[in-house]
Amino acid sequence: MNAAQKIMRRVEMLANISDEPGRITRTFASPAMLRANELAGQWMRQAGMKTRVDAMGSLIGHYSGKTPDAKILLLGSHLDTVRNAGKFDGPLGVILAIACVERLHQQKLRLPFALEVVGFSDEEGVRFQTTYLGSKALAGRIEARDLNRKDTDGISLAEAMKNFGAGPASLKSAHLNPKRLLGYVEAHIEQGPVLEQKNLAVGIVTGIAGQSRARVGFLGKAGHAGTVPMKMRKDALCAAAEFVLAVENVARKTDGLVGTVGQISAQPGTSNVIPGEVHLTVDLRHAKDSIRRRAQKTLQVAAAKIAARRGIKLAWDNVHDTPAVPCSKTLSTRLALSVGRHQKQVLRLPSGAGHDAAVMAQFTAVAMLFVQCKGGISHHPDESANVQDVRVALAVLNDFILNLAKNEHV
Amino acid sequence: MNAAQKIMRRVEMLANISDEPGRITRTFASPAMLRANELAGQWMRQAGMKTRVDAMGSLIGHYSGKTPDAKILLLGSHLDTVRNAGKFDGPLGVILAIACVERLHQQKLRLPFALEVVGFSDEEGVRFQTTYLGSKALAGRIEARDLNRKDTDGISLAEAMKNFGAGPASLKSAHLNPKRLLGYVEAHIEQGPVLEQKNLAVGIVTGIAGQSRARVGFLGKAGHAGTVPMKMRKDALCAAAEFVLAVENVARKTDGLVGTVGQISAQPGTSNVIPGEVHLTVDLRHAKDSIRRRAQKTLQVAAAKIAARRGIKLAWDNVHDTPAVPCSKTLSTRLALSVGRHQKQVLRLPSGAGHDAAVMAQFTAVAMLFVQCKGGISHHPDESANVQDVRVALAVLNDFILNLAKNEHV
Repeated sequence: MNAAQKIMRRVEMLANISDEPGRITRTFASPAMLRANELAGQWMRQAGMKTRVDAMGSLIGHYSGKTPDAKILLLGSHLDTVRNAGKFDGPLGVILAIACVERLHQQKLRLPFALEVVGFSDEEGVRFQTTYLGSKALAGRIEARDLNRKDTDGISLAEAMKNFGAGPASLKSAHLNPKRLLGYVEAHIEQGPVLEQKNLAVGIVTGIAGQSRARVGFLGKAGHAGTVPMKMRKDALCAAAEFVLAVENVARKTDGLVGTVGQISAQPGTSNVIPGEVHLTVDLRHAKDSIRRRAQKTLQVAAAKIAARRGIKLAWDNVHDTPAVPCSKTLSTRLALSVGRHQKQVLRLPSGAGHDAAVMAQFTAVAMLFVQCKGGISHHPDESANVQDVRVALAVLNDFILNLAKNEHV
Repeated sequence: MNAAQKIMRRVEMLANISDEPGRITRTFASPAMLRANELAGQWMRQAGMKTRVDAMGSLIGHYSGKTPDAKILLLGSHLDTVRNAGKFDGPLGVILAIACVERLHQQKLRLPFALEVVGFSDEEGVRFQTTYLGSKALAGRIEARDLNRKDTDGISLAEAMKNFGAGPASLKSAHLNPKRLLGYVEAHIEQGPVLEQKNLAVGIVTGIAGQSRARVGFLGKAGHAGTVPMKMRKDALCAAAEFVLAVENVARKTDGLVGTVGQISAQPGTSNVIPGEVHLTVDLRHAKDSIRRRAQKTLQVAAAKIAARRGIKLAWDNVHDTPAVPCSKTLSTRLALSVGRHQKQVLRLPSGAGHDAAVMAQFTAVAMLFVQCKGGISHHPDESANVQDVRVALAVLNDFILNLAKNEHV
């Protein structure tokens, strides 16, 4: 069994650790999460790492550098999952990182920097309706109000943290010192269809897209579908339909922008009544905040025009604005060189989904490697990556680490 | 108090007869329905009519003609209501008809034809989820399976009919002989905004529009709102939006056609997921069946093109096709002459909603007079008609009856 096959087997082994029978669910501080840490911790120790679980439950394996004061390169991803998850979202990045260290260990190589593999305890935020608890703890960004959050059983985050051992009291010790870090590199399935379409195993992430979310209401006038002539209607759904197409059109015209109306409801919602009210959501994402915000303004103006022309009211509510997080150019360029040595084409693409790297970027340089996944499907049992692509990802990461070691004089 | 004011007062009196406190609800064979028949029956007898309640519970007042074998002109509307109804939908037509006969009675006039005022017991079909039970009984079109229908309490129509007296056994006696009829004339609120917009009290109904109803599904592909580029999407909601606008466009371009998408649902229906499936309803109505059916075909072709262009599947299900019912040209022309003598303009408009006249037209000539209602609102407590317009409607009906008497040599 080669290294890539071993990775695939480990993905399967983690997939068998679940809080729910018959499907994959591992939420923060759950019994399955503890067992996942235990198993991945064994793998880390087998790969020559010293392991610890920090106050927030993230599993960290340390592989020493040539000197005790060597800087640290962080590698990893998360070990928690959504409910009824796929096998690859999170675990693949952790297992790939362990495999990289295992190779160094087998070859008895020590680098000018230490390696730490992190398995974050909470990226999906299923249990406490928050996100990135694991990486936020490393960043020292967990606040008192976060600790007071309760799950659906009324258990607070502070209480749940105790399942991992130390609990909130030792949160400070989880905080990493940025001065000791070289950066953070995360491998993750793409969760989109681009690499598959281009027939590429891996791609370089330019950054994590910023996101705008708005709730939009078109308030027209309900009426009898048989008795109100077309000219006299104030049909909220027709206005909404124009707007849905405006979102698509603006996103299509703007390179790299994605725009989605995911929710729509028409009231009163019966076949023989003209819709009087329609409410919908707009989700806009782009790697550049200025482009995304300009698109949002364009669409708000478009919605106002549509409403005005139809004599109906518009209600626009911006509910969410998350800035984009660019990846480190230096680190990404190094990663790209490694990709170039193992794949015909170096594709750069933004990540439309969020990742721990977005938090890590606030205190260290980050780079991300996307791995092709089947049909772009994620957060679903059908989530899938193939062994050939995993092999390329592993080769790229190994290459990246060794070349960084050649060039990094720490 | 003049005759129109008296009509308005009677509308109020009937509105106080309800199955539900605080709102107007009179369903088939309910206690309120029986009391409404009793009250309207008193008014009929005061107006010189002999009254009867037929097997289906319709109240009929007979005002004799000059000879015992004189033909019969039917006038009326329905006395049942939807739940939480307005005051005018139905009762106005019955009360107006009674007022016409009352005037003849006061003037001791007998015409070459008899007049019968009908208060149908079931036009809305609330209790048994059917429609036109009253007029279908006059047409002899009640079938065994209709009688077996059950309400939500498990009471059959046959049992409920017994509340009115005779029950199903005497259904045959309710059947009217078409050879004895001159026709049926119904006054009804418009339930639409056209007369109000044109500032007209009344209008002539050209016919009751035919209706097509279809369920349409656009089956695309769900995906992550952040990770699937615009070019690679199969967004079912964008396809549906194009189609909603196609329905509006075809209806706007086709004189007299109304087209409505009243229901829409997008799956999975979360803000950060591209809609993979959208289902919607299409309601098309026109006074001419050929125009309506052509429009439906045009839209089905348009939907198929939209789906094909976007690489998604279309599911089209025609669930309903009710042919149009034209009003009698002869009778409507006479009614129009009467309108012309009491109003500056004779407006002809189709009825987008169904009426008992649609059933009556199957065995006798029918004409309908629409009365302006406020804001086009109907099937709602805000339903309203004003006394000035009711006065015009009464004058038109009186004029129509007297002029028919002059010209009809039966």
